[in-house]
Amino acid sequence: MENLNLNRHISGQFNTELESVRNQVMQMGGLIEQQLIDALTAMADNDLELAREVIVKDNEVNQFETRVDQECSRIIAKRQPAASDLRLILTIMKTVTELERVGDSVAAIAKMAIENHGKKVPSLIGLENMGQIVIKMLHNSLDSFTRLDLNTAIAVHNEDKKVNRQYESILRELMTFMMEDPRSVPFVLNVLASARAIERIGDRCQNICEQVVYLVKGIDVRHATEEEINSLIE
Amino acid sequence: MENLNLNRHISGQFNTELESVRNQVMQMGGLIEQQLIDALTAMADNDLELAREVIVKDNEVNQFETRVDQECSRIIAKRQPAASDLRLILTIMKTVTELERVGDSVAAIAKMAIENHGKKVPSLIGLENMGQIVIKMLHNSLDSFTRLDLNTAIAVHNEDKKVNRQYESILRELMTFMMEDPRSVPFVLNVLASARAIERIGDRCQNICEQVVYLVKGIDVRHATEEEINSLIE
Repeated sequence: MENLNLNRHISGQFNTELESVRNQVMQMGGLIEQQLIDALTAMADNDLELAREVIVKDNEVNQFETRVDQECSRIIAKRQPAASDLRLILTIMKTVTELERVGDSVAAIAKMAIENHGKKVPSLIGLENMGQIVIKMLHNSLDSFTRLDLNTAIAVHNEDKKVNRQYESILRELMTFMMEDPRSVPFVLNVLASARAIERIGDRCQNICEQVVYLVKGIDVRHATEEEINSLIE
Repeated sequence: MENLNLNRHISGQFNTELESVRNQVMQMGGLIEQQLIDALTAMADNDLELAREVIVKDNEVNQFETRVDQECSRIIAKRQPAASDLRLILTIMKTVTELERVGDSVAAIAKMAIENHGKKVPSLIGLENMGQIVIKMLHNSLDSFTRLDLNTAIAVHNEDKKVNRQYESILRELMTFMMEDPRSVPFVLNVLASARAIERIGDRCQNICEQVVYLVKGIDVRHATEEEINSLIE
């Protein structure tokens, strides 16, 4: 009986630790979501102050990565988790890396907003639309991770096509802009870099969703086709 | 006595498994090194055939990622490794992710080589120089990983500055090119994308070297300054 209690106690402790790590991932996700919204707002509103805040706060994102990563290593070493718990922890570690790199892209958007300050950004509507899709993708990928929701994860994964189409259309627009006004090249390249940063956040959301699929189904879909992934919908 | 032998046997098996995984990482690294050399050659020599080969072979790189990752999860679950072995395995998992993304950048360079086929690439000498530095960085980062060589890892980490400077110089050159001949914009943007892909491989090598530092010193330097990293040189 004592042993049983002890086991239950250990398992309870373990659950608490796992829960704490998952909470930190969600907090990190919430922070990055807000950072993304702020960076896109700073770009659209020409808001220097807000852009600078985003860049400073990227540090907090980085600290989350380091902390969660350490915590996960510690849990594996201490708890020697079984297959399914281990899978959760390894998935958290990968998700956190993706989130940190979303943070890098967000900081890049904020830097471009500073460099482009005072200029009228071409393709702004396209950028805002693409930004809106990506904000939603990030939110839903984190949500699918929290609720282990396979279908949402796959839906987000499919959404990235839209982002890519939007990016291609912005790219064409900006190319025409540069060809018609060659003096704009340096500035427009900055705008293009922002578009690419947003596009890459979409890719990162896809990566997070691939981790959710792995967590729920135990299938590694990182190099699977869209068709193969969609066949997993429940 | 029997127990002792059994333990030694288990430990021997464990070593064999670890060795096998490390060997696979080295094979994967060797494959990607060759892929990078081929992609850059395809770009410089306008070699369609070689560029296509690189793209096809990216599949092999992806398979390595999946296989090593699975194998590492399996080893952790089965062997429940102690702190230092666990650190090695987690580092291998992260390194393999970085290598797979180097593979993506290499495939992107090969795709650009195909799109630019038959055209005289501007800034080719700059691209070749940057390519040479990055080939060496990739080689040395893998070497530092294999030999757990802290000083080499830090040296490679510092090398990335050169790549960034080279990229900035190519960027300026290509901007001038586009401003002088606006019709070249779409094509030159492709060349710029190749330059960026090469630059990103440098970043990935830095990430691998940060893992080596972590492995050798147990210090997470992912968000450390250059000064802090250099202070670790032995």
